Amino acid sequence: MTVNEETPFSSEEKLVQLQALLTQEDQTAVCDFFVDLPDTEIALLLESFPASDREKIWVCVPEDLKGEVLAEVGDDVRSALMSEMALSDVSELTKDLGAQDIAEILDTVHESVKEAVIDNLDDSTREQVQALHAYDDNMVGRYMDPSTVNIKQDVTLETVQRYIRIKGLLDETTQEFMVTDKDNRLVGSLGLVDLVKQNQEAEVSEFMHQSVSLLDEMNVHDAAVILRSKELRFAPVVNQEGILVGQLNIDHIMEITREDADNTLLSMSGVSDDEELFAPILSSAKSRGIWLGINLATAFLAAYVIGQFEAVLSQVVALAVLMPVVASMGGIAGSQTLTVIIRGLAMGQVGGNNRWWLFNKELWVGALNGLVWALVVGGVAQLWFDNWMMSLVITLAIVINMTVANVSGIAIPLLLRRMKIDPALSGAVILTTVTDVVGFMSFLGLATLLILT
Amino acid sequence: MTVNEETPFSSEEKLVQLQALLTQEDQTAVCDFFVDLPDTEIALLLESFPASDREKIWVCVPEDLKGEVLAEVGDDVRSALMSEMALSDVSELTKDLGAQDIAEILDTVHESVKEAVIDNLDDSTREQVQALHAYDDNMVGRYMDPSTVNIKQDVTLETVQRYIRIKGLLDETTQEFMVTDKDNRLVGSLGLVDLVKQNQEAEVSEFMHQSVSLLDEMNVHDAAVILRSKELRFAPVVNQEGILVGQLNIDHIMEITREDADNTLLSMSGVSDDEELFAPILSSAKSRGIWLGINLATAFLAAYVIGQFEAVLSQVVALAVLMPVVASMGGIAGSQTLTVIIRGLAMGQVGGNNRWWLFNKELWVGALNGLVWALVVGGVAQLWFDNWMMSLVITLAIVINMTVANVSGIAIPLLLRRMKIDPALSGAVILTTVTDVVGFMSFLGLATLLILT
Repeated sequence: MTVNEETPFSSEEKLVQLQALLTQEDQTAVCDFFVDLPDTEIALLLESFPASDREKIWVCVPEDLKGEVLAEVGDDVRSALMSEMALSDVSELTKDLGAQDIAEILDTVHESVKEAVIDNLDDSTREQVQALHAYDDNMVGRYMDPSTVNIKQDVTLETVQRYIRIKGLLDETTQEFMVTDKDNRLVGSLGLVDLVKQNQEAEVSEFMHQSVSLLDEMNVHDAAVILRSKELRFAPVVNQEGILVGQLNIDHIMEITREDADNTLLSMSGVSDDEELFAPILSSAKSRGIWLGINLATAFLAAYVIGQFEAVLSQVVALAVLMPVVASMGGIAGSQTLTVIIRGLAMGQVGGNNRWWLFNKELWVGALNGLVWALVVGGVAQLWFDNWMMSLVITLAIVINMTVANVSGIAIPLLLRRMKIDPALSGAVILTTVTDVVGFMSFLGLATLLILT
Repeated sequence: MTVNEETPFSSEEKLVQLQALLTQEDQTAVCDFFVDLPDTEIALLLESFPASDREKIWVCVPEDLKGEVLAEVGDDVRSALMSEMALSDVSELTKDLGAQDIAEILDTVHESVKEAVIDNLDDSTREQVQALHAYDDNMVGRYMDPSTVNIKQDVTLETVQRYIRIKGLLDETTQEFMVTDKDNRLVGSLGLVDLVKQNQEAEVSEFMHQSVSLLDEMNVHDAAVILRSKELRFAPVVNQEGILVGQLNIDHIMEITREDADNTLLSMSGVSDDEELFAPILSSAKSRGIWLGINLATAFLAAYVIGQFEAVLSQVVALAVLMPVVASMGGIAGSQTLTVIIRGLAMGQVGGNNRWWLFNKELWVGALNGLVWALVVGGVAQLWFDNWMMSLVITLAIVINMTVANVSGIAIPLLLRRMKIDPALSGAVILTTVTDVVGFMSFLGLATLLILT
């Protein structure tokens, strides 16, 4: 099947088709729709409907895919789908899944159901699931695939190939074999490509390479950054003793990469990273409400600053008219810098003495843009209100606010990081507070000094 | 080498080490630093220094990696590094590179250098480079790897394996073989895993599968979304006639995925997606200035609205004090919705009749949060200014503004998308304009009606 822009193929078009089928209430057609769809697409579709429609879709998901689909959907959707499920259903669903998927699904169910399901698993899967659950959910160990294909270094490539065929090992995602010693300590890895490409009489040791391995308790986001910077598609995972415990695959690296980028975007806008698009009204309202409350506190701080200048405001009402322009220009300039710096921090490009270079740069960018746009604002203000003194005041205030905004845009995320706080989460609100307060204070303060009679 | 949090290993720590070596002006130590570093990390380091330091680093990059590093760095950094390069240097650098890397590098050089370098290439590479350059830079064809390993369907797996070893085919990234007919038309593909795992006497046709193929002229961002939703690590690329022309690999899918997520973040903050962190002051100031100018126009629109209410402002100066609170709460509420919807659109989850469900949801989330926080603001205002009428006015204004903000947060991106404008780019500025104008108008308008005497 060849894909191009005209093929009815994109997720959105599939979604519209499924909506139409559901509206026609034709159960058979809905069920036919899922034949041949991969689990990942079914999961995305499930997430694209409000809870009320999900049940109608769920009954049509092919039985042999239900487990994988459940492992794939977000936590909220999974909880909703599983809330009514009997223990026997959960056992049935998890029967043929890998340890990773089972561990993921069991995170959502009641402790009692979880234990019962784990008891029903075969020995090796149970051990793997328990091993995964032993890690915190931001550790590499929680995301790794515990089943690896292990080989010894003193056998020939030909022997490895025969061994694989006899044992029926390898799944679609295998890219590397782990070379281990008799104590299961990692000594290197052999690429599937080399297994095929190289002289079959040679021993594994001749073509194995030292791969970058990850410690199981390492933070998985840091691990993803490292693997990405090296363009690695895979990494063995070892414990403190150097014993091989699993591998981290490209799919998970990609998933974590995308989640990290998403989370930055959501955090900066004050949305919780686990808010589902189709979450119920009350739950969305509650999760966004917290951020609104924090913002309100900072808005009142800005209002308090303005309140200190009531005298000049009551004398020159035009100040109230132009006031938001000063705050707004500072806010935009600051958030441009903030975004550039947060992205640079995420990529590991900001550190050591280049901070001072960047500081200096942002200071000048702020001052330069501040000057240019301050003159424009000053000009417009003069034409509008014909008050030379006020035009001078707003020109100065904008230069000050935009310069401070740019410097804050780099200082705030660096300080937050030193305090081990995620700059994406609180950077924006602190920055806005700074630009509002500095903006109103410089504008109304200068006005008090120069205009108030 | 095992990686954990304590290993001096992250990009940032590497960066600090290199900074220290450069400060000591110890050229040998700097050059030693690059031994064993992969091209991707060298590229990231080069991008982490201002232009003035880059030359000192560049001379230390191992000769055999310079080509790959150049292909890896951003356009701005590449232009700067290549600006002084002679034709012979460029030819030398590109000598051993793949067609994709050569095409990427030649995009940055002068037309005359480009033609000369292409003339010096061997026949097959020249053809591939010219084929890549024939595509627009948002097309799949521009990102594909034109060299594929093609096999016929009626040979045995064993024969394929022998053929590969004799020809020395396969590079590290090979995952699938293309099965083609005599006219080079794609008939399917065979996984490297299956080549090893399955019965070696069997023919390719028995284990080949129909893979999703992409049309060469398709938009590469759309292609990445599709491959991701199917968790595919690879796709063959064909032209209109069904002839195989190349393959899109996981590395490029991942790169495009990350770029898209990055671009959303940058666009929403009004930063150009090709602004380098260490770009010169003037160039950054200019690229951010445009956005500041657009914002200024909308800020003046808001100021104009306030200007219409000078009468009530001059009578009740407390209105000027509280005015920014109304605008700010609307702005935050709206941008929460905007972000959630832009993300949903990017994932293909918003479409068809679920828009109305989302509309309804956002309306209620806005009204609910509006009501809760309006009461809080009203209460604080009453305690502060002891003016019942004004407290009522601000309570009403906040309910109105937050409800309108949430509805605009979904309406604006949907409208922009229908007009084929990227909602991430202009959504935020339009939304702020709406929340400012509605906020000031409802607050000061109600005040005029209810308070002005």
